[in-house]
Amino acid sequence: MAVKLMGAWPSPFAVRARIALNLKSVDYEYQEEDFRNKSELLLKSNPVYKKIPVLLHDDKPICESMIIVSYIDEVWTDGPSLLPSDPYDRAIARFWAYYVDDKWFPALVEMAKAKTDEAKKEATEKVLEGLKLFEEAFEKCSKGKQFFNGENIGYLDVAIGCYLGLIKMADLMTGLNLLNDKTPLLAAWAERFCASKAVKDVMPDPERLLEFVKVMLAAQAAQ
Amino acid sequence: MAVKLMGAWPSPFAVRARIALNLKSVDYEYQEEDFRNKSELLLKSNPVYKKIPVLLHDDKPICESMIIVSYIDEVWTDGPSLLPSDPYDRAIARFWAYYVDDKWFPALVEMAKAKTDEAKKEATEKVLEGLKLFEEAFEKCSKGKQFFNGENIGYLDVAIGCYLGLIKMADLMTGLNLLNDKTPLLAAWAERFCASKAVKDVMPDPERLLEFVKVMLAAQAAQ
Repeated sequence: MAVKLMGAWPSPFAVRARIALNLKSVDYEYQEEDFRNKSELLLKSNPVYKKIPVLLHDDKPICESMIIVSYIDEVWTDGPSLLPSDPYDRAIARFWAYYVDDKWFPALVEMAKAKTDEAKKEATEKVLEGLKLFEEAFEKCSKGKQFFNGENIGYLDVAIGCYLGLIKMADLMTGLNLLNDKTPLLAAWAERFCASKAVKDVMPDPERLLEFVKVMLAAQAAQ
Repeated sequence: MAVKLMGAWPSPFAVRARIALNLKSVDYEYQEEDFRNKSELLLKSNPVYKKIPVLLHDDKPICESMIIVSYIDEVWTDGPSLLPSDPYDRAIARFWAYYVDDKWFPALVEMAKAKTDEAKKEATEKVLEGLKLFEEAFEKCSKGKQFFNGENIGYLDVAIGCYLGLIKMADLMTGLNLLNDKTPLLAAWAERFCASKAVKDVMPDPERLLEFVKVMLAAQAAQ
C-alpha cells in the first residue's frame, strides 16, 4: 500500500505524522512542501485548509496532524498502540493533546512575536504554566514509566514532543531555559523522547529553526 | 456506575454530551451550571478550562465535548457505535468535527456579533460556505443513508447537529434561512436529526436561545 506524506521540515505538525509513521515502522515517501509555493497535490488533497501535513494512503488524503496520528494508530495495528487501552486514559491523553494545541502553542508563538517586555513576560508565564501542567500530567499518565504512554512513545508523547525543537529554539532566542528543574520529569522525558529512534532524525535542529523563524518574522514585519 | 453531566442548556457543547449519552441509553444525573456562578464541583473537575461540559464517571472527570463523545462511545459499547468502523471513514468524521469547531462556529459567532453590514456579510458568507462543505461531506459520508454515520446518528452527526438550535436562532435573528435549498441533503438531515428521540428533548429552543443571546450580547456591550 502506497504511503506518502506531504510535510515541511520546520513544522511540528508534520513531525507528528513522521514520528507516528516511524513508530509503526511504515515505509513512506516524503514530499517537502514550500510554504510560499504549495504543490498542486497538496492544494488538491487538503482543499479546506490548504496546509501540511497531509498523509496520502493509497491516494486517499488524511488531514490534521493528530487525526493523522490516530489514523496511523488504527491502520497499522501490528506496531505498539499509540493510545492507552483504557478509555479514561485515552480521554486524558486526548485532553492534553487538545490543550497543547489550543492554549500552549499559541502562548509560545505569542512569546516569540511579543514586541514589548510586558507582552513577552505575560506570554512566557503562560508557557511555563503549561509546562507545569504537563509535568503533573506526566506524573499521572506515565505511572512511573518512560513516556506519557508508558513503556512506549504514544499519542500524547507525539502531541507534546513535536514542539521540543521549538522549545529549544525559544531558549536560543530568549536566553531562557524553559525545561528546567521546576519540571524535572518533563525535562528528563524530553531527553528520552528526542533521543529515541523514531524521533531523532525528524526533530528539527533548534539553530536551523531559529534561522527559519527569524526570516519568517522579518518577512511578516516587512508586510 | 454513577454518571453525572455538568452542562448548561444553551451550550451546543453540553448538547453533544447529552445526545451521546441518550444514544447509548445511559442513565445520568444532569447538573445545570450558571455561567456567572460556576459550582465548586465544576471548577474542581475542569481546573484548566473551568467550563462545561464535564462528564463525571464514578467521580472521574472527562472534559471537552468531543472527547466526552469519544469516551461515551468507547465505554458503552453495547449501544450503536458512534464512529464508523473503517479507519478512513473515522478520519473523515474527525476532520469535519474538527472543522466545525475550528472554523465554522467562530464564523457563526462573528455573524451574530458583527457591528457593520460588511462584517455581517463577510461572516454570513463563511457560514454558508461551511454549510456547502457539510452538504458535500454528507453526500460522501452518509452513502445514501439517513445520517453522516449511516443508519444511526454518530460522532459527526453530533458534532455538527449540536449547532442546529443556534442555526435556527440565527435565522430568527437575521431573517435569513441558512439551511435552504442550496443544501437540500443537509436541510433534510437537520429535520431528521432534530426529530430523533435522542435529540429532541435536549436541543435548545431557538426562541429561548435568542432571548439568552440578546441578554448576553447586551451584557458584553455594557462592559
